[in-house]
Amino acid sequence: MIRTAILGASGYVGGELLRLLAAHPQLHAAKLFGESKAGRPVAETHPHLAPFYAGSFEKFDEAALADVDLILAALPHGHSQDVAPTILERGIPFVDLGADFRLNNAATYERWYGHAHKAPALLGEFVYGIPELNRAAIRGSKAVAAAGCYATAAILALKPLVDSGLVNPKSLIVDAASGVSGAGREAKEATGFSTVDGSFSAYGLLNHRHTAEMEMALDATVLFTPHLVPMTRGILATCYGEATGEGDPLETLRAAYADEPFFHVTDASPATKWVSGSNGVQVTARYDNRTGRVLALSAIDNLGKGAGGQMVQCANLMLGLEETAGLTAIGVYP
Amino acid sequence: MIRTAILGASGYVGGELLRLLAAHPQLHAAKLFGESKAGRPVAETHPHLAPFYAGSFEKFDEAALADVDLILAALPHGHSQDVAPTILERGIPFVDLGADFRLNNAATYERWYGHAHKAPALLGEFVYGIPELNRAAIRGSKAVAAAGCYATAAILALKPLVDSGLVNPKSLIVDAASGVSGAGREAKEATGFSTVDGSFSAYGLLNHRHTAEMEMALDATVLFTPHLVPMTRGILATCYGEATGEGDPLETLRAAYADEPFFHVTDASPATKWVSGSNGVQVTARYDNRTGRVLALSAIDNLGKGAGGQMVQCANLMLGLEETAGLTAIGVYP
Amino acid sequence: MIRTAILGASGYVGGELLRLLAAHPQLHAAKLFGESKAGRPVAETHPHLAPFYAGSFEKFDEAALADVDLILAALPHGHSQDVAPTILERGIPFVDLGADFRLNNAATYERWYGHAHKAPALLGEFVYGIPELNRAAIRGSKAVAAAGCYATAAILALKPLVDSGLVNPKSLIVDAASGVSGAGREAKEATGFSTVDGSFSAYGLLNHRHTAEMEMALDATVLFTPHLVPMTRGILATCYGEATGEGDPLETLRAAYADEPFFHVTDASPATKWVSGSNGVQVTARYDNRTGRVLALSAIDNLGKGAGGQMVQCANLMLGLEETAGLTAIGVYP
Amino acid sequence: MIRTAILGASGYVGGELLRLLAAHPQLHAAKLFGESKAGRPVAETHPHLAPFYAGSFEKFDEAALADVDLILAALPHGHSQDVAPTILERGIPFVDLGADFRLNNAATYERWYGHAHKAPALLGEFVYGIPELNRAAIRGSKAVAAAGCYATAAILALKPLVDSGLVNPKSLIVDAASGVSGAGREAKEATGFSTVDGSFSAYGLLNHRHTAEMEMALDATVLFTPHLVPMTRGILATCYGEATGEGDPLETLRAAYADEPFFHVTDASPATKWVSGSNGVQVTARYDNRTGRVLALSAIDNLGKGAGGQMVQCANLMLGLEETAGLTAIGVYP
Repeated sequence: MIRTAILGASGYVGGELLRLLAAHPQLHAAKLFGESKAGRPVAETHPHLAPFYAGSFEKFDEAALADVDLILAALPHGHSQDVAPTILERGIPFVDLGADFRLNNAATYERWYGHAHKAPALLGEFVYGIPELNRAAIRGSKAVAAAGCYATAAILALKPLVDSGLVNPKSLIVDAASGVSGAGREAKEATGFSTVDGSFSAYGLLNHRHTAEMEMALDATVLFTPHLVPMTRGILATCYGEATGEGDPLETLRAAYADEPFFHVTDASPATKWVSGSNGVQVTARYDNRTGRVLALSAIDNLGKGAGGQMVQCANLMLGLEETAGLTAIGVYP
Repeated sequence: MIRTAILGASGYVGGELLRLLAAHPQLHAAKLFGESKAGRPVAETHPHLAPFYAGSFEKFDEAALADVDLILAALPHGHSQDVAPTILERGIPFVDLGADFRLNNAATYERWYGHAHKAPALLGEFVYGIPELNRAAIRGSKAVAAAGCYATAAILALKPLVDSGLVNPKSLIVDAASGVSGAGREAKEATGFSTVDGSFSAYGLLNHRHTAEMEMALDATVLFTPHLVPMTRGILATCYGEATGEGDPLETLRAAYADEPFFHVTDASPATKWVSGSNGVQVTARYDNRTGRVLALSAIDNLGKGAGGQMVQCANLMLGLEETAGLTAIGVYP
Repeated sequence: MIRTAILGASGYVGGELLRLLAAHPQLHAAKLFGESKAGRPVAETHPHLAPFYAGSFEKFDEAALADVDLILAALPHGHSQDVAPTILERGIPFVDLGADFRLNNAATYERWYGHAHKAPALLGEFVYGIPELNRAAIRGSKAVAAAGCYATAAILALKPLVDSGLVNPKSLIVDAASGVSGAGREAKEATGFSTVDGSFSAYGLLNHRHTAEMEMALDATVLFTPHLVPMTRGILATCYGEATGEGDPLETLRAAYADEPFFHVTDASPATKWVSGSNGVQVTARYDNRTGRVLALSAIDNLGKGAGGQMVQCANLMLGLEETAGLTAIGVYP
Repeated sequence: MIRTAILGASGYVGGELLRLLAAHPQLHAAKLFGESKAGRPVAETHPHLAPFYAGSFEKFDEAALADVDLILAALPHGHSQDVAPTILERGIPFVDLGADFRLNNAATYERWYGHAHKAPALLGEFVYGIPELNRAAIRGSKAVAAAGCYATAAILALKPLVDSGLVNPKSLIVDAASGVSGAGREAKEATGFSTVDGSFSAYGLLNHRHTAEMEMALDATVLFTPHLVPMTRGILATCYGEATGEGDPLETLRAAYADEPFFHVTDASPATKWVSGSNGVQVTARYDNRTGRVLALSAIDNLGKGAGGQMVQCANLMLGLEETAGLTAIGVYP
């Protein structure tokens, strides 16, 4: 078994990683680091895991990394910059879900995140973690910055269309909506049940940080508007661009993803629930000759392909395992 | 009291009209026509009205219109074309929520609705029912085709921006999302609880019929994508257009709606729940200098300002009543 | 106008009171005290009130009570004990939603609340605030302790059955379920959207404090189990007792509530949504000859008849106003 | 592989069986019978299965049973009585989720279901399918009538307490609540999103048919009240009985379920979401010395341990497979 340390094990992504690792043939959750819940039983925080994890969370401890073969980190923003230098120095394979090392230059980071990067020299060490884009690079890397949930959804819908010249990369609009688990476990009035139930709203108008990732990965200009949906899991990205080519965007997606194990290219309009609890991606696209635009949609589970699932998929590649190991479970529906 | 007949009284909009009329100082719900529930108690279908309406729905009966001073119709699509000729001939003030008479020419109707209009000569008789656009015309009319819920939300967000030259009317994208009550009361698998709960999806890709209304009212080209949200009430329209002017779109909205009784122009990002159960509209807008686009958002209750509330507001104008009569209730929150 | 001060105006009950007072012919919300949000705009905390309340919350200030004709308090538990002595001394009519003065003796209070009462001498000054039980006493009182939401639901379902001898008061079980707004506005992981959505659970097993009120008002022994429902508003109480008499419990409820303005005794099984956003109560009951038990159910809105609505109803009585003033709005459905 | 036919494959339980079988090491979904969707693609009805099942549903065809090693039926009520004689005659192992063969005598069936049983002679052929009660009998049987979802939840909470004499079997009250998927896929106004969202209600007052199963399995008298929760999956049973013994009911449950693979006996109050998407059961119990009653609670997924999971667990036993085969997936949370 591959001894795996989870940093941020008490958060929602941490819980998803524990769920996935329990079904993984090689990865074993050996260290469950959770600062805010250190000393508390895993079962209390992740009650679905109660029959499966008897222990408690631990405080992070560098010494404990000596026995570890893989590190999966799902930490609050900014924390990865503190631990990454040590991890990279030790040469332990590292998949980070933080935004800290996703962007490829420090200036862009500072512009979108509003503060200087603490470890700019390491930015070049990380591969941007979307296997469908960077499979080979991920395979050969020791450090992967798994993509953000919104960015994953938008990029997977748009990348083949941009690359094949079907849409003008300067014209992209990403209108996306997420379930509330994307905001993490921390109690906030904005994500309280009574605030969100029966309500739909946009947020982060014009300046959501995932924009930078989308622009980097697509080499494009993107106007991105995230929305909050009264549901727990799921992201739907509804993407628009000016049509620049003649091809059928749906066929382009079919061709691009024909061999991808987690994709279903559909002529239906995908719903987030169709992939809930899984690492699946359902995408579609249309050309609108009335307005000269391309419409592309993708549905993922923000905690699956948008977080924990993608991390495991990246780790599988880095470690030379079967790419789908631990990720074959069908989502739960209805 | 003004004796009011409601056609389609057993539907969700019918129920909203009954709720509003119970608090209206002049309008009295005198006739409750409901074909599919004729003979059944109102309280069974509208259980919130149980203490207020003791009677039953009736089958529609032209003779009964003799005693009626106002007709409010919320019928399944296409039915208004059957009853409108009689109503207009009798000269009874008529507010129709159907799409039948919203468009101003029969060719556009046929293109979007897929069949010929049965009463094309009457299209010119109806005023498009958004008081903030057509107040004077509504005041002087006997026949109003109240706007669709999505169309209302989009038009109210965009109209002042288009009119003031801030956005290119050929570039509009309306990405909107509705609660499930917009699909009506009829039982369908697509709107069953287990289908919708925990799910977010787009539908009507490229061809939703409200597009035609938006284009007519805005004199614009619109790509419209509706979405279904796991909530009962509310519509949020997130609208995009290429910026063409220098003005601040938020100030433009403030100026346009300064005297409107149901509007709140906000620098926050409005949520549908903020107007739930009311006739209110909350709108905002932003100019994005990074992408050269304007972003405008509006939140309404699809059964309030998007249906029953707007119908009552139109009726008040037509009958020379206080425009806000029966519509002053604050929405329910949280 | 009657100048009304609201203590705890920034909470959910505070927001409901502001909504109700905006429609009240006599009560005017003159002072909005909200400690945790003092200085912040009302519209930020209560976005549905944005078009109606332009001001900000204030810090509580005894001096400000000089101009006040009525005090409505919806404070966190325990705070009423601090302010009550001053208010009672000044003789200002006072409706308190806190649990502080609901019980009629200090020993019972200490047993259920786990600490000594700070103002035991005042316990006798307060009338327990359920108008249907104590109308005359409320009319003659300057201090009313409005009943808890669960207690209101259970007591209204059971009181006529106990009083008429149809059920054994030593055998009562109250199995009730509440929407999440009952837990207040404060951000907690337990009431976060992702925790509650898709989940149903009991809490406060054997020891929920509202038990004491139920036992006091019913003069009975009650085993009470509250549950949390993934919905924002509403309480349903499903109540069981051993049948001791021959009468039909449904007819007993009909007789008891025949003249009550907010009641609908139904032979259907009431749903919480039927009274959502209103001061309504829907109740039913059955005798089960198979098991020799009586089943009684009641549905209320926990923020309506279970909180703000009941407070206004009590205030109306205390001040000699029409009992239904400000409370006639029909709830919102669906 | 064991060739498995699913009857009712297009329903919610059918979809759950297909999801479970896709992860089962031995059972293979060879025949997908779905009358109402015959000829339609599986992916259209079960969109989460789109990447996994390429085919279509078939009309039921007795001839097709020739190649089948196992039959799992989740049919509308009453249909199993039609197909059971043939299946039993052929000797194919059969797990039926219908209520048709759960009760052990025809008179009780007729009393609760309101019509005579069509195949009363076969009632004795079926073992009541709760492995924790009847493991040995299920192992030796060719025909199992898997328990109803509510019955499973209630029986698992109460059985050890009744058997150990801790509660009076004549005093049982089961107050339970279910997610909407328990009502099946068929479109009905009562289970429409707009009806259920934001609402909680009881139904089937005094006469829900699962009462009979509970009484049979517990040898008890039960007053059962089911409720509908605005959530898709999950059942919580809150059970009450008069205490008759001295033992600690929680310890009794711990002892009874110590070796059960799917159980977690907890001193917390279990929530349905803790077992959602799994075959898990979380139970707890308390003795209330104040009222002399025992309180016991259990949470299951109505489509998991309450339906598809239990069917697979029974099938595993009948076929001599590992009891947990295909059922080890951890549920999805949050």
